[in-house]
Amino acid sequence: MAMQVNLIPNIRIVLVGTTHPGNIGAAARAMKAMGITDLVLVSPRHFPSEEAIARATAADDILNQARVVNTLSEAIADCHLVIGTSAQVRSLPWPMLTMREMGMRVRTESASHPVAIVFGRESSGLNNDELALCQYHVQVPTYAGCSSLNLAAAVQIFCYEIMMAESIQVNDEQVRPVAVADMEQFYTHLFNTLVDIKFMDPAKPKLLRERLRRLFNRTRPDHNEMNILRGILAAINDK
Amino acid sequence: MAMQVNLIPNIRIVLVGTTHPGNIGAAARAMKAMGITDLVLVSPRHFPSEEAIARATAADDILNQARVVNTLSEAIADCHLVIGTSAQVRSLPWPMLTMREMGMRVRTESASHPVAIVFGRESSGLNNDELALCQYHVQVPTYAGCSSLNLAAAVQIFCYEIMMAESIQVNDEQVRPVAVADMEQFYTHLFNTLVDIKFMDPAKPKLLRERLRRLFNRTRPDHNEMNILRGILAAINDK
Repeated sequence: MAMQVNLIPNIRIVLVGTTHPGNIGAAARAMKAMGITDLVLVSPRHFPSEEAIARATAADDILNQARVVNTLSEAIADCHLVIGTSAQVRSLPWPMLTMREMGMRVRTESASHPVAIVFGRESSGLNNDELALCQYHVQVPTYAGCSSLNLAAAVQIFCYEIMMAESIQVNDEQVRPVAVADMEQFYTHLFNTLVDIKFMDPAKPKLLRERLRRLFNRTRPDHNEMNILRGILAAINDK
Repeated sequence: MAMQVNLIPNIRIVLVGTTHPGNIGAAARAMKAMGITDLVLVSPRHFPSEEAIARATAADDILNQARVVNTLSEAIADCHLVIGTSAQVRSLPWPMLTMREMGMRVRTESASHPVAIVFGRESSGLNNDELALCQYHVQVPTYAGCSSLNLAAAVQIFCYEIMMAESIQVNDEQVRPVAVADMEQFYTHLFNTLVDIKFMDPAKPKLLRERLRRLFNRTRPDHNEMNILRGILAAINDK
């Protein structure tokens, strides 16, 4: 009886600000068992590390290939779908996926473009700016609201759910959304323009920025649509 | 938003011959996060242990209540359903459940009687006599047959699947999109503005209008977001 799974390409696990290197190793092991191999570390406290290697056991190849970057934006620039994991109730609600929806969507979209799942710090998770870079948030239901899932355990659950999900061709739109880097250029252009036309106060823009990110992240514009949006901004700038 | 699960009674996690006490602690933490609290240890190498307590974090109550016994038979004597976890292909085929079947069966039967999930040694799993005490075997599919799931990670996956097997009220923050009439007022405002700033030619606007409608219809903005969009247009008009 073969209960083996194949490698699942195009899925990136991003760990932000990990404090304990043992968790990085355990996360790598969790990934590999599910056939997921692309690991990016955003400003880990200790890496490379002996403890990470020890906990990774046979997944040391994942650690060796892991990229280390300074910001979440760098980590996900080429991804077309970014899912943030959150243990907290947020003041500004964001589009949520259940775990099962997450698995199906990730499998479906990763067939055509890179997808990132983003995990925050052991102590405090992802901050608001980081969560705002994501199109969807996902929360693992836990007992009594104890956000006490270990980081590697959370990675294990997500990778397991992705592995278990069948790639269902939902085909809800044949649109191929632009990459995060294009979205970021758009947001920079948008926010600069809104300051120029005095709609946004650069001194205290924060909630407005988040709200606009939430709104436009929902659209998941394709290349053509992005050209239209940028064209509108350029036309405003010309005035 | 409540993504909390309730305690799930009548489910016992049995760890047989565990070598590393850290795995016992991590397993307790994995259980508690999913609302499962009954832990029985069969001949653990080291228990109680400081390392187990450290890895359990807030699940130390599960360790304190854990029973230690000498044989698997003792551990499961009062259980009506016993499921053995196995990473190996066995010479003697046994009734198997998929993970999803396991979750449903465990939830269904635990409503009326105690159910045990049995995990073997880190190195060698359960032996044939122990596997023969189980009604069903379950294997977590893994990559390339590497039976490299960490023990606590396996406990996490089983407990997660059991927790998920009951439909959870996700209550994902129903945003209430504005009505069509509001969308139409927005489109009128948007198209007039685009003509004003000479981005749109009113003589042949058709495809651009359609593209913008498709884009913004996808956002399904709520009342607040609509106010922001209209505010931006008003600021452009003021220039």
